[in-house]
Order: sequence, then structure tokens, then C-alpha cells
Amino acid sequence: MKKQLLSAFFFLSFSLLGFSQEALFGGQQIISPEVHANNTVTFRLLAPDAEKVEITGDFLPTEKMKTPMGEMDGPGKVEMTKNDQGVWTFISEVLNPELYNYSFIIDGFKTTDPNNPFLIRDVASSTNIFIIGGGQGELYKTNDIPHGTVARRWYDSPGLGMDRRITIYTPPGYETSNEKYPVLYLLHGAGGDEEAWISLGRTAQIMDNLIAEGKAKPMIVVMPNGNVIQDGAPGEGSMGYYKPQFMVPRTMDGTYEGAFEDIIKFVEGNYRVKADKASRAIAGLSMGGFHTLHISRYYPNTFDYIGLFSAAIMPREDATGKVYSNFDETLQKQMDNGYKLYWIAIGKTDFLYDANKEYRAKLDTMGMPYEYVESEGGHTWRNWRVYLSQFAPRLF
Amino acid sequence: MKKQLLSAFFFLSFSLLGFSQEALFGGQQIISPEVHANNTVTFRLLAPDAEKVEITGDFLPTEKMKTPMGEMDGPGKVEMTKNDQGVWTFISEVLNPELYNYSFIIDGFKTTDPNNPFLIRDVASSTNIFIIGGGQGELYKTNDIPHGTVARRWYDSPGLGMDRRITIYTPPGYETSNEKYPVLYLLHGAGGDEEAWISLGRTAQIMDNLIAEGKAKPMIVVMPNGNVIQDGAPGEGSMGYYKPQFMVPRTMDGTYEGAFEDIIKFVEGNYRVKADKASRAIAGLSMGGFHTLHISRYYPNTFDYIGLFSAAIMPREDATGKVYSNFDETLQKQMDNGYKLYWIAIGKTDFLYDANKEYRAKLDTMGMPYEYVESEGGHTWRNWRVYLSQFAPRLF
Repeated sequence: MKKQLLSAFFFLSFSLLGFSQEALFGGQQIISPEVHANNTVTFRLLAPDAEKVEITGDFLPTEKMKTPMGEMDGPGKVEMTKNDQGVWTFISEVLNPELYNYSFIIDGFKTTDPNNPFLIRDVASSTNIFIIGGGQGELYKTNDIPHGTVARRWYDSPGLGMDRRITIYTPPGYETSNEKYPVLYLLHGAGGDEEAWISLGRTAQIMDNLIAEGKAKPMIVVMPNGNVIQDGAPGEGSMGYYKPQFMVPRTMDGTYEGAFEDIIKFVEGNYRVKADKASRAIAGLSMGGFHTLHISRYYPNTFDYIGLFSAAIMPREDATGKVYSNFDETLQKQMDNGYKLYWIAIGKTDFLYDANKEYRAKLDTMGMPYEYVESEGGHTWRNWRVYLSQFAPRLF
Repeated sequence: MKKQLLSAFFFLSFSLLGFSQEALFGGQQIISPEVHANNTVTFRLLAPDAEKVEITGDFLPTEKMKTPMGEMDGPGKVEMTKNDQGVWTFISEVLNPELYNYSFIIDGFKTTDPNNPFLIRDVASSTNIFIIGGGQGELYKTNDIPHGTVARRWYDSPGLGMDRRITIYTPPGYETSNEKYPVLYLLHGAGGDEEAWISLGRTAQIMDNLIAEGKAKPMIVVMPNGNVIQDGAPGEGSMGYYKPQFMVPRTMDGTYEGAFEDIIKFVEGNYRVKADKASRAIAGLSMGGFHTLHISRYYPNTFDYIGLFSAAIMPREDATGKVYSNFDETLQKQMDNGYKLYWIAIGKTDFLYDANKEYRAKLDTMGMPYEYVESEGGHTWRNWRVYLSQFAPRLF
């Protein structure tokens, strides 16, 4: 009895002590999502006045959807069931280990799950996420293992005339060892920024887990911002808060590639790194694959490891910038100089599949060696996380 | 004409190149919020099927609201107006410079603005934010000035028997100078974690701006996690994704204060700091104010600057832990040892106002010197950001 009274007192006292008033005025008192031991997931939403609630996400079988670019595989959608307390519920099938995303659609209005604070932003949209652990999903979790450090820093870019924000992962032990480390430069796609790989890509979790398992060497991972008109990600730079767009001007006009040496100089001048070709890798997804393709041949003899993840392939014969001139010549030179790995990965249903096929044919004609991985699926972060987890163990 | 064709080609090509497929399937094509030059703000929401849409936020006059703790000032709420395209609109009054939050209520369902990706999490609720610049609001913006680095690191806590995540701000120039820096330990409230001050508190922006204006000395700001059962914030530690609660067990049983020396040791062993009393400050909000009160007297002669922001004051006569024993004696000792600033701030409508008044009376009786700031408003992040911007210039 006394214990109960004390607990009640503690609850009242404690519940007053700390959170802001605002935090009192919102929030539903239910749990969603709930991942069960058998890898099914229960989703719940309190919406007594809604007439129809659906859930959509990449854990459901894909559905064909119309987009501005034609029909594509989109996330599936199912109706949820309402109980007499106004709580809508859906229980998934048994799910494979993976990081999934989902949204609710309440009477036609697509929105987030108010009970799940774990959101990731993809361009301008925020969706909820959850993880099914084990297997590949285990790589995306923060496990009880040694962790690297993730720093958001600013570097001076004389080539772009501004200080710019950059995300840098240093591996466990970096601060306390005297070792020099190799560096992976990891580039985002259109609509992304220096936050994309670390949040959507789970870079820190993937690297921590691979390193702890002895599957990847300890390395520094550098995640720059590829949009040359921004000093930082939307909301993180001096342009302030604005709605992020897919198309940021001047992302593929050669300016970024031309100024990339500023990033290498910053990293090699500010971190304990092995500053040689054998200790430099560069990889990118989609537009970042395009940047990787161009940067790796534009800076001769700089990178021994090159990764094109669902890469945009544009020889850009219309482009006149210095970076895109002498394309064939510099590619030939890159081949002649040699490298240890030129790794190309793409999904079978990716809309860039044909462009990649043509590029591989070009490399075949030149006799330029590469490794090729063809996965299921399309142009998705799910694939890019997998590609990183396959590429990183091949490095250094 | 040729230029137009080229542009169309570029648009189509570029728009295919980079973002994930998922990003295509969501998103409304309108702008919200839109901050106008005269500091009014237009909010917009596309919800053609909704019958009633309201907006609620701390930019509106407060309203009395019932909470589990009785009536409190809550964010105001107004109805939005629908046009014939199904877009709901509300235009605010002219707003003072500040960081504001808001949510939409669609037919009774409270949710986020799908056109505004800038969200902050307060315990388990995510709300949208926007900033009105100028004045105090200018301190919360990322301006084109030198920026410090924000690192998420992990430190070993022998006292808690685990590696723990910690957020550390180092000032502009830290990496390139040979100087030693003073340190502010900045503690969150109940329901918070090592992400609270950096996101809700805008610590990096406030410090960058104050330092650039010459109003605060360059200093390191250390933001630990005060919940001893967690190794990291919800979603960032090995407990994985779960719904954050106000009340984390064992937050106020003396364990955290007792193990705080692990944090000081880590910082002083891993950063270029001035490791003396004159160069150590500690401050915290609410529960973090409680921790500050206890840590600053429990570790004798350690801190010259102490800040209690809307502090929870609990002499904890019921508590038997080592940290809370000899309260009066150690407080007297703290006074006798001396310090440069004991700073107490609270809002007039804070539910901890009376407890703070009693504590000040106790200090008055002892003759223990302090400075007191009484602000408008209550137990809100708006006040805590202001308190930090007033406290930091007084340090070192």
C-alpha cells in the first residue's frame, strides 16, 4: 500500500518535471508499430471520426502506379480495420529482415503515424520507418558494439566560394589510435544532400556493424552535399527552411565535379588519412553515380575503388564544361592507369537499367574491366543500402 | 526554341536521375508555410475531402487547456478556410521573431504539415517548425558565419557499465587552433535525451551566432543523455525503435549524478579543454536543472558557473542515495567554496514557479548568492532557448 502511494507520488512528481508544456497537448496513448517476435507487425491509429483508413508502405507487395515518368512499381496499400474504440489496426504478414517505410491514408489524406516518431525525409516527404532485425536488417540497427563518430562539419570550398556543410563518419577507435585510415567518398542522388546517406542510407549503422563483424576495414566515410547552390541541406544551411525539390539547379553541369578537389583537400588536411590512390574510394547513387563516374576519371590516378549504384549515365555530349570534355579519352586514361575495382550495381526494374546496359556495352567495347551486380527491385534506398553493404567489404 | 527544347530535355532527364522511386509517390505540390516579408505567414493544406481543418501552434494566442496536471496554457487553435481547389489556407498576424511550432487538425485528427519537412520531436510527438528571423529569431537561424562542428560520439561510462551516445558542439576554429577551450555541460529534461538541446534547443545555431557576434566566448558544449537506462536516444541506441515516454525509470534516483564524472573525464581526456573550475559550466532545464543543482554541489569545487532553467527542485528527503544525502551540508560547502555565477531562470506561469520560489527562499536564508531572471511564459522550449542565449554570454 505504501509502495503504491509512493509510486503515485513519484508518477505525479516526475511527470511534472522536464518535458515542455507543448508535449502535454498532443500524442495518442497507443503503440504503433509493434514488431512481434515472429516478424509480423501491428500498426494502430486512433481516428474515431475517420471513415476509411489505409496503410501504404514498402513492406506490402508493390502495385503499379502512374507517375509523371510513366507506370512504376509503387508501395502497396491495404485498408485497416476499425474497432469500437475508434482504433484502426492492420497486422502484416511475416516480414523479411529489412528497414521498411510506411504512411497512413486517412479518408484520402496521406500522413504520418502520430505514434511513431521515427521518420526519414526523402526530398520533401517524411515517412515513418521500422526495422525487422536479423539478416540484412541487422546491419541497419544500432547494436551493442563499438560505434564510430558522426560529425557535421563545415569546410571551405574555394572552388564554390563558400563554406559548406559535410557529414563525416570516423570509425570506432579513430580518436584514440594513431593509425591512418582509408577514405570512402559517398555521394547522394538528386534531391538528396549531406543528410541523405546518414539517415536514409544508414551509413553509420552499416559501417559499425560491418567493421564489428570484421567484414569491412575501418574507414572514414565522407558524405558531401552535391548541390552546388546550397551550403547545407535544406533547413541546415544559410538558405534556411524551404521545400526541398528534386531538381536543384546546376547539380549536373560539371561545377560539383570540378570543385571536388576542395573536399579531398579538406579531408586529407583535417583527418588522419592515408592520402594515396589505394586508400581512396568513391561511390554514389543515381546522380551521385553520375558524379562518381565523372570525378573518378576527371581526377587522374586518384581513386582505386569506384562504385556506381543505380547510376545516372549521361555522356553529356551536349555539355561543354571542362569536366565533360574528353570523356572517352579520360575514361581510356582511367583504364590505362588502372584501378582495383569498378563496381556497377542496378536493379532489374530500375528506370536507368537500359542506360546502364549501354554504358556496360561501351566499357566492354573499350575492354575496361568492371564488376556487375544485378539485383531485384528498382531505384530505391532499399537497394542502395544493400549496395553499400556489398561494396564496403570490397574496399582497401 | 532550341533552348526551350534543351530545357525540356534537361528537365526530363534530370528529373529521372537520383531520387528514389518512393519519393515520387507522395507529396503535395504546394508551399506551406510561406513566411512573408512583413512577418505574416501563410499556411496551406490540400485536403479536398476534409470537412474542417484547424491549425494549432505556439504562434497563436494561448488557450487554457485541460491536462492530466490541471488547466494550463496551451497552443491556440483557429479554423482554416477552404478554396474551390480543396486547399485550406490560414494567414497569421504579423509575428515576432521566434522559432514557432504548429500542427494541423483535419476533421479532429492532429497531424503534421505534409509540405513542411522541418519537424522536431519533443518526447514522442513530432511537430512542424518555422522561424521568423530578426531579433531573437536570428539566433536560431543558420547564418552565413563561421560554424562549429556537431559530433555524435560514444563514450565509455564505467559508472553505468555501458558505452553511451553523447552530442558535442565544438566552436568554429576548434580543429585548426591549438587553444584550449572552456566547457559548458548542458542537460535536458525528462523525456529528452542527447538530441534534445541540439534540435529543440538550437544549441549549435545559438552558439555560432553568439560567438560570431562576439557575445559569447568560444566554448565546447557537451549534451549528454540523462536517462541512465538508455545508451542513446530512442532510435539511436541499442534499445532500438520504441515510443519515447516522459518518464524513463531511474532518471532521478542519483545514478546519473553519481556517474557524471565519467562524462567529465571523457571530455577532458578527449578534447583540448581547460580542465579547471573556472572553465567549467553546467546548466540544465527542468529535470536537467535538478541534475545541475545536485551535480554542482556533489562534485565539490568543480563548476564556477551553474544554470538552473525552469529547474525541478526536489530536495528528495525521501531519497536515500548517496548523491542526495547531506544536501544542506554540501550546498553550504558549495557556497563556501565559491563560484562565479549561480543563475536561476523561470517563467511566471511555469508550474515549477512555486518550487523555485521556495528554493530561492532557502538560498536567501543561507545567504547563498544567485542571480534570478523571471520571464514571461511557462515550461517551454521557447523559454529554454532564450535562457541559453542569456546564460552563455555570462560564461568564462
